[in-house]
Order: sequence, then C-alpha cells, then structure tokens
Amino acid sequence: MKLTLVGAGPGDPDLITIKGIRALQAADVVMYDALVHPDLLDHCRPDALKVYVGKRRGAYSCMQEDINPLIVHYARQYGHVVRLKGGDSFVFGRGYEEIEFARQHGIETAVVPGISSSYAVPASAGIPLTTRGLSESFWVVTGTTKAGQLSADLRLAAQSSATVVVLMGMHKLAEIMSVFTDFGKTETPVAIIQNGTLPDEQIVIGNVETILEKVNESGIGNPAIIVVGEVAGLPTGQTTAVAEAISQHLSETK
Amino acid sequence: MKLTLVGAGPGDPDLITIKGIRALQAADVVMYDALVHPDLLDHCRPDALKVYVGKRRGAYSCMQEDINPLIVHYARQYGHVVRLKGGDSFVFGRGYEEIEFARQHGIETAVVPGISSSYAVPASAGIPLTTRGLSESFWVVTGTTKAGQLSADLRLAAQSSATVVVLMGMHKLAEIMSVFTDFGKTETPVAIIQNGTLPDEQIVIGNVETILEKVNESGIGNPAIIVVGEVAGLPTGQTTAVAEAISQHLSETK
Repeated sequence: MKLTLVGAGPGDPDLITIKGIRALQAADVVMYDALVHPDLLDHCRPDALKVYVGKRRGAYSCMQEDINPLIVHYARQYGHVVRLKGGDSFVFGRGYEEIEFARQHGIETAVVPGISSSYAVPASAGIPLTTRGLSESFWVVTGTTKAGQLSADLRLAAQSSATVVVLMGMHKLAEIMSVFTDFGKTETPVAIIQNGTLPDEQIVIGNVETILEKVNESGIGNPAIIVVGEVAGLPTGQTTAVAEAISQHLSETK
Repeated sequence: MKLTLVGAGPGDPDLITIKGIRALQAADVVMYDALVHPDLLDHCRPDALKVYVGKRRGAYSCMQEDINPLIVHYARQYGHVVRLKGGDSFVFGRGYEEIEFARQHGIETAVVPGISSSYAVPASAGIPLTTRGLSESFWVVTGTTKAGQLSADLRLAAQSSATVVVLMGMHKLAEIMSVFTDFGKTETPVAIIQNGTLPDEQIVIGNVETILEKVNESGIGNPAIIVVGEVAGLPTGQTTAVAEAISQHLSETK
C-alpha cells in the first residue's frame, strides 16, 4: 500500500518531471484533479484505474473529506495510488492533509514535487518574480482562505518590496487592489494571467488603479494568477525607472 | 540563434521536466552552473559543447557580467544555447538578465521553468509551505541581496503568519533569527535543509531560539534552505496546538 503525491505542473503537459512520469507508470490507481492536463493520463498503464476527483465548473465538487478516505480505499484495494494534482501538491494543494490521513491508516507515502503555477505561469508570460534591483523577494498568498476572507498578511505584503502573487483570488480582485491603494501603490504594475503555459494563455497588464477595468474589458477570468509588483510591467515596458536602469546596465556591458 | 533557459530543479536529476530534457537534446551548446547535477548532461547530444560557468567553492567564480556575453558568443557561433541553471531560472536565478541581454543582441529566447528549491526542498523533507489552518501564505527571500544586506522585507515577513523561506542565507542566520526574536517569535519552529532531494540530504530542526546552536552542533552548511514557520516543525512534531488540531481533525474523519 502506497500513496505518491505527484505535482502535474501549471498546465503544459510537458512541464511534469521525469520522476512524476515514472510514478504514473507505476501506479495501480491514478486519482486526478480538474486542472490536470488530460494528456498526462497517457503515461498510465492501460490497466490502471483512473479516477476523476475534481470539477472545475458547476455545482458539484469532490470535497477533501471525501477524497481522503477514497485514497485509503483504493490503496487497500489495488496497492499503489498516485494522486495527480495541478501545480505542486504542497503549495495550496492540500497535499499534506492527504499524506497525514494516509499515514494514519498505515499507508506508505511519497511526494514528487511539481512546477508550481505561482512562479512558472508568470515566467512563461515573461515575468520573473525576482530580478536584481527590482524585486528581492516574492510572497505567494491565496485569495481563498479557510475562513473565506482575504489573508491579513496581504496588508504586510503591500507595504513590502516583494512581488505579490495571489492564487485563486479573482473573485476578490477589487478588495486586493484596495489594500495596495491604501498604501499609495496605485501605479504599481499588475498582471493577470489565465491558462498560463497553455496555447490559450491570456494576459492582461495594467496597474493597481486600472486593472479592474482592463479585466472587465477583456473578460479574463478563472483560473488566473494575479501578480502585483514592478516585475509585472516588464512584458509591456510599463515599469518604473528601475527597470530601465537594469536595461541600461545590460546595454553598457554589451 | 536561440537561447533557452532551463531550470534543472532542486538537486535530484529526475526532477527536471520533460520539456527541459527536450531542450537539452536540441542544444548545440549547454552552459551549466555549479548546482546542476552532472547526470543531466547525459541528455545532451554527444556533439554538443558543454561549458561550465560556475564554481561552488573556491576563489574563482564566473561573474554574471562574463556569462551574458558568452551566451551571445556561443549563440552566434553554434546556434542554440541552453542555459542550465539549478532550481528555476527566474527565482533568484538572474535568468531575466540573461534573457534581456540576449534579446538586445537579436537572439530569440525561451524559458522552461524548473522546480524551485524554495518549496520542493522543504516538501521532500516533509514540510509543506502551506497547509490549512497552519499557514496560508509563504514568502521567499534571499539572504544575499545586491547590496549585501538582509532584505528590509524580512521585518514585515516576520510579523506575518507566512512561512518564510530564506535562500542563500546561512551566513546571516544569526541576524535572521534576531529579526524574528524582535517580534517575540522565539518559539517558532525553524528547519535547515542541506542538499535537499539528494541522497546526502541533511535536516536540522529547532526553533528561533535554538537553531543556531543546533546548526553549530550538526555542522550543516551551504547550500542550505532556511524555513521559519509553524510548518517547519511538522516532521518532528515540534509544532503548536494548531498542528495537533489538524491531526485530530483528520483522525475524526477516519
């Protein structure tokens, strides 16, 4: 009996690791989420049981409370269960809860990390979360906390020089922007990226003041990632003097 | 002429992506850093030029200012250059500087994200950076800023409920811990992980007050990752009542 959590990566099915593919090939059962690319299931053995445990749109969605005992059930019945989750299982993926539950039921566990959307989706859109002189740290928060409220940490983040990445936060975009406005950051660039790393990737770039209107005009929506910080302006050159200084510095060393 | 940045992942050579391997197979030249696992070079074509541009210990180390023009030189001479970097190229990897420099010289660029050590090394040691009820955000900072000082953001991070991850910060461990002490967080768990995801991985767990002594006793050193937050105590059960509550909650739903 074994449970292996495998991170499927941000969207593009080639952004899974070799180790993740080996786990899929070894699995007796694969339990997969909504955001997992269907091509990844081609790596499974033909006789492997494939179980869908998520739903992106619509009313019904598998609850974590249902998934945990299902893992135990399948591990006991079939042997090796791979839990295939979008992004990385330990970055807002609730992977630890699954690992803990399985362990409590005597099941061996392993974790294969995946490429987290938090930095890879911005990267594929040309936005580095850190770059010398522009951002020396980044903060990843969820827009959907257990209590349903915006994390109080966001007020600290808004005062920092960190690039702030908000996952699952589109429904609170106005509230998030107002936190940055409170700290006088109306000009700070903001990028919203939908379906990052996939062929239908969409990106909208503005600043704290303009982004809401731009999002409404473009019709961009979930699943999307919000990036707030000077680096968010890099793809369109909507950055401050600091970005120009980097560019200048690089030109001088030509 | 093309430059592809490829993230090699945190250490384990199987933690590179399929897309990264395809880029290595297509490369005419591979320029690789010190923290890249040597086995990854086996994916290169036999006729590909392999150029080492880093040195972990010792006096000499390739400067970024030297690497940028080298990339341009090799792209012009040979065609497709793959820049293979530890972790992810855009997470403190200075990848954006290389991309910008290459673009300014008319070279096409692409980015293949890698598994960042910032979350994958803690994960492989049993530490999820986020987990419901314990941590709803994480903040990744570098201990080595351009100016050589500790990022001022760390004082904001220390006041938050975020899991704080410090990369390249071992030489400033005492200073980092004193920031957390200033905010009364002497009991907060701290984990130090060296050579994460590799066979010689080493981990030391303590709290803000005790970690310096434990590090001295164990002799753990660079390259290491520092994790500060309640989640850091999970592998040894050195956590607060909150972690017990999660465990309790999971037991009840058995």
